Amino acid sequence: MAGGGDDAAAARNKMVVPKRHVTGFPTEEDMEVVVGTVRLGVPAGSTSAVLVKNLYLSCDPWMRGRMSRHDEGATAPGLDFVIGETMVNYGVGKVIDSTHAELTAGDLVWGMSGWEEYTLVTQPESLFKINHTELPLSYYTGVLGMAGLTAYAGFMEVGRPKRGDFVFVSAASGAVGQVAGQLAKIAGCYVVGSAGSDEKVDLLKTKFGFNDAFNYKSETNLTAVLKRCLPDGIDIYFDNVGGATLDTALLHMRQGGRVVVCGMISQYNLEEPDGLRNMFYIIPKAVRVEGFNVGGYFHMYSRFEEEMAGYIKEEKVVVVEDVVEGIESAPAALIGLFSGRNVGKQLVALARE
Amino acid sequence: MAGGGDDAAAARNKMVVPKRHVTGFPTEEDMEVVVGTVRLGVPAGSTSAVLVKNLYLSCDPWMRGRMSRHDEGATAPGLDFVIGETMVNYGVGKVIDSTHAELTAGDLVWGMSGWEEYTLVTQPESLFKINHTELPLSYYTGVLGMAGLTAYAGFMEVGRPKRGDFVFVSAASGAVGQVAGQLAKIAGCYVVGSAGSDEKVDLLKTKFGFNDAFNYKSETNLTAVLKRCLPDGIDIYFDNVGGATLDTALLHMRQGGRVVVCGMISQYNLEEPDGLRNMFYIIPKAVRVEGFNVGGYFHMYSRFEEEMAGYIKEEKVVVVEDVVEGIESAPAALIGLFSGRNVGKQLVALARE
Repeated sequence: MAGGGDDAAAARNKMVVPKRHVTGFPTEEDMEVVVGTVRLGVPAGSTSAVLVKNLYLSCDPWMRGRMSRHDEGATAPGLDFVIGETMVNYGVGKVIDSTHAELTAGDLVWGMSGWEEYTLVTQPESLFKINHTELPLSYYTGVLGMAGLTAYAGFMEVGRPKRGDFVFVSAASGAVGQVAGQLAKIAGCYVVGSAGSDEKVDLLKTKFGFNDAFNYKSETNLTAVLKRCLPDGIDIYFDNVGGATLDTALLHMRQGGRVVVCGMISQYNLEEPDGLRNMFYIIPKAVRVEGFNVGGYFHMYSRFEEEMAGYIKEEKVVVVEDVVEGIESAPAALIGLFSGRNVGKQLVALARE
Repeated sequence: MAGGGDDAAAARNKMVVPKRHVTGFPTEEDMEVVVGTVRLGVPAGSTSAVLVKNLYLSCDPWMRGRMSRHDEGATAPGLDFVIGETMVNYGVGKVIDSTHAELTAGDLVWGMSGWEEYTLVTQPESLFKINHTELPLSYYTGVLGMAGLTAYAGFMEVGRPKRGDFVFVSAASGAVGQVAGQLAKIAGCYVVGSAGSDEKVDLLKTKFGFNDAFNYKSETNLTAVLKRCLPDGIDIYFDNVGGATLDTALLHMRQGGRVVVCGMISQYNLEEPDGLRNMFYIIPKAVRVEGFNVGGYFHMYSRFEEEMAGYIKEEKVVVVEDVVEGIESAPAALIGLFSGRNVGKQLVALARE
């Protein structure tokens, strides 16, 4: 019976909690896995809550910012992780019990859940019911979830591509980059990507259909490589890394170009961010540099889900995932994002069903 | 007879020419006034040229960039000044002779002319006929010319103000800033300006109707003064200065804010620009930072001229000019822009009629 959780069976619940606030480069030891118990039902009297069994957890770069201690107002403080409390982030799960009007036991959902085996979601409006169960469920941690919607909103709504545009995507084999680049191809653009290993560069060219790609770690001169790969300049730069890559791209923008500022993973572990010295050039070139985050675009999720599911079925968008098994593997998987250890979308599989 | 310049009388023509390319802070000695002669007519055979007697020259910050030696592609090289050749910039003049279909002797015009007494304009499509001769002619070097159109296009088209927006304008008593701030008031915004002397701050509050203003040279903590003057943050930052002011404003933008990047006068004389360290914050706040220049907006000049002339007649826009007399005064007037010596729109009067 829905909402009868006070009498429900109890189960073990392993969870990942932060041990301390992080400055500089995070390590696995900044988190720990602790074991608790959970009642497998929504407590009596909770009129709109959902008990979710978590199946897949998403590892996302923005989690790094939430590990730091913030001054008031610096970022949205409600998103910061709380020391000793289960980390909250996007995931895929199965509804075990629900008092929410639109979700019932057995439904598959994605949205904000916990880094633990079971989560009592008390704000179920942050959960989306999964409609395309014929596709791999794990895709809802990435291409059909937050990362995919981020790429779609950023590239299509902020970048406003035109056929023939020259597009540059950094961190291009990552969860957002791989989708942004493939959307650029669908839009008829010429797409160049950067990534941090030859293996990833090969993926960009052979699997994701980028026109060109380069390994930023083995290139000594970013200016030269951008001139070589994009001799006519850049119409849209989809920025996932910030820092020197952004600064160099600013020099190479074309008249009326757009810089879609999605993330700055190169900067998240620095005590002081790198200084950008080329912003002046946005004046003569009339370049728009626009920051955005997916929070402003969830209203278009339904349309996005249908469109993206179609691209996946037509193989216009392919997906590369990096999957680790078990909640004990989650801290290392998250840390790996910041050294680029992952190849493709990083996620943690807790259970499959 | 139009186009009979080969037989026309000759006149003295004093002109300002650059002596060398500039690095760092420019000085008067980087230019010199030389004396030549000019025939007071369009040469026979010139089918579309205009001989202009220059009445007012405009001193504009963007002239600094054109004094430097540029690598290919860094800025539009066609705009750079040529050593030993008369400097070209916006001015107001009277047509002496013309073979252009739409201009005849006696017409008053503004547009690209020379820093000299008489200029043979061979690209007269860059000249606009002055329609509101009942207003001070000198206004067409500023509020009714390039600076005014820059403020109008930047604030209205790029900034897209909404009633009640919190607006910050830097270099706010200057040619562009004073118009941007008054347009913000007309649009129903709350407007704060910064300037470099108490006299200018007083002008902002008492003459231009800014809600608040501060002297950035006497404030030791830019963060604190922005928090004090704009405690709820900034919806539109109209940036004329770049550097630390821009970097601090980035920290104080509101959700969905717009940074209209019009100029960076604090940076033009630096060997290496200051690094911007706060660009990350455009991501969580979804801030748009848009560079623009007036070059993309001349198509709206007619509409702008009518609207702005109306505001001036209604005294919704007032004008403060800093006028020096004679072409010998032009180099010092230009240099004065970079130390903020001028109070209001800097221009040079060559002749009045």
